[in-house]
Amino acid sequence: MLPVIFPHTLHSPPAPCLPCSSKPQLLPSRPSFRAASASFSMESHSNQGRTKFMEFPYFSAPHKRLMVDLVSTVETRLASQLLPCTLPPDVQYYQNESGTNHATLHIRSGLTSSPIDFILGSWLHCQLPTGGALNITSFFSYLNPSTNAPHFLLEFFQSSPTSLVFFLDLLPRKDVVLHPDYLQTFYEDTQLDAPRQKLEKLAEVKPYFSPSLYIRSFVSPTAVLVRIEAQDGGLSVEEVIENHVGPVAKEVLGIWLDQCACAKREVGENERGELKKRDDVIKRNAIELDLGSNFRSWFGADTADRVIGAIREAYRV
Amino acid sequence: MLPVIFPHTLHSPPAPCLPCSSKPQLLPSRPSFRAASASFSMESHSNQGRTKFMEFPYFSAPHKRLMVDLVSTVETRLASQLLPCTLPPDVQYYQNESGTNHATLHIRSGLTSSPIDFILGSWLHCQLPTGGALNITSFFSYLNPSTNAPHFLLEFFQSSPTSLVFFLDLLPRKDVVLHPDYLQTFYEDTQLDAPRQKLEKLAEVKPYFSPSLYIRSFVSPTAVLVRIEAQDGGLSVEEVIENHVGPVAKEVLGIWLDQCACAKREVGENERGELKKRDDVIKRNAIELDLGSNFRSWFGADTADRVIGAIREAYRV
Repeated sequence: MLPVIFPHTLHSPPAPCLPCSSKPQLLPSRPSFRAASASFSMESHSNQGRTKFMEFPYFSAPHKRLMVDLVSTVETRLASQLLPCTLPPDVQYYQNESGTNHATLHIRSGLTSSPIDFILGSWLHCQLPTGGALNITSFFSYLNPSTNAPHFLLEFFQSSPTSLVFFLDLLPRKDVVLHPDYLQTFYEDTQLDAPRQKLEKLAEVKPYFSPSLYIRSFVSPTAVLVRIEAQDGGLSVEEVIENHVGPVAKEVLGIWLDQCACAKREVGENERGELKKRDDVIKRNAIELDLGSNFRSWFGADTADRVIGAIREAYRV
Repeated sequence: MLPVIFPHTLHSPPAPCLPCSSKPQLLPSRPSFRAASASFSMESHSNQGRTKFMEFPYFSAPHKRLMVDLVSTVETRLASQLLPCTLPPDVQYYQNESGTNHATLHIRSGLTSSPIDFILGSWLHCQLPTGGALNITSFFSYLNPSTNAPHFLLEFFQSSPTSLVFFLDLLPRKDVVLHPDYLQTFYEDTQLDAPRQKLEKLAEVKPYFSPSLYIRSFVSPTAVLVRIEAQDGGLSVEEVIENHVGPVAKEVLGIWLDQCACAKREVGENERGELKKRDDVIKRNAIELDLGSNFRSWFGADTADRVIGAIREAYRV
């Protein structure tokens, strides 16, 4: 959720001093935090929260279409295995005091009988002190230790109309150095490197190295971790998303749904313990790395703590 | 040793059909395999083998100077901890039947009281069926389980005068996802990403993705794994080696010598067992991945088996 792959890429702006001058223009109705909370009735807040999440108001049309498509595909395919979102309204939608920064969070846990741990979607919009804006969209689907199949992770990070960082991965659940058979099953037999290679061929696409060495370490060897930059006379960022990123993301999600989320796999008690241990370490580190100083400075300590608390609960760490 | 990072990058040429037309020009005296064996006396073959290894006859002057510098630096600094090379002469220098393909191998084990497992150097020259030539230089320094510090790995892979693949890494000995403190100690505190970032800035340097997913997985997050390509009006490959690759390789080797090979580290019995298990898996997979069909087709099955046997003995797997 929230910047998983991109911590420390921004200078942390001082918390209370974010400029209010450039109000976001694209969100049709942007209630204050209190108003938003009040407008959610207790019975329907889950649907209202999902609707708000699926608006993706600060994103280009191809970007929004892609996100809606991906989330809908997963929610439809896994419908019988997912519980409704039970996040409080003020975690499903939150903003900073000055109203310049907004975000949504959509989490649905899996039934205990399902291999799904939870799915998590989010968009986040922040006005930067430099005058620009930062937009992050995330969609993760985590499995529980009843299976050792990889998690699905996708994230976009955009701080300019002509440049965007894109992360897409099936996240390994085991140390693949000690378990080459795991690589074979989930990454070689599924030809997971082919989508990455398709993107790599575009002039607009360059490898991206996360400033966090931990994040570089925990991704798979087929992870798509790229910077997309519009070129003079080349494709726009929107065209790259529409015609290249979209098909690649759908292909990888299809592999994850068929070969990971919906494939029966036998996992013994010992291995379950190992999987849980590794998942917990990754989740804890992700929260510590991702939701640190930037998040507090963007939304204020109270809001940040409330959202982080809800995420810890969903992550069960 | 021999292509660690670059397996499967070449179409395996049929073993007995390598063309003999373009004889190598750079090796001053190139005795046949039998003559080479006979010329090594039993007493002095270790020195003669080292001399032949240090000739690097198929490589540019900056490349040769760099390799001699790196190997000499390690052998001087670790002199009191290294045994002489005890490889048989026909493993220290070997070639194929037709005399088109040549290679040297130089291995020195560490004393049992030392943290050094072994150092391994090699150069390899093969005429390719396409008419070009392939040159590989490798230099590895492995530590034993009395320490958990990373191994040192360096490799060049060149199949054209204007293009070269370069690999440089301190290879992690632990699953860094479960042990972020390991990343902190050996990769963050030592600022190991800085040398990689220096190279990344050059127009002639591009990230290289090994076709082997296993190899992509076992390297560290600061690994330099790049393709160097001469650009019109830019630097030549030799200039990049002389002015950029060389300083970076020396800097990383310096970090390895100071912070890994020569730093005392406490390792308990349990951890030693884990380290040995992981090292053995990596070594076994490296041999299987690297010295497969290409190696047999380049040198013939008998020679390949003899060399692989010697490497297995040095690797103790």
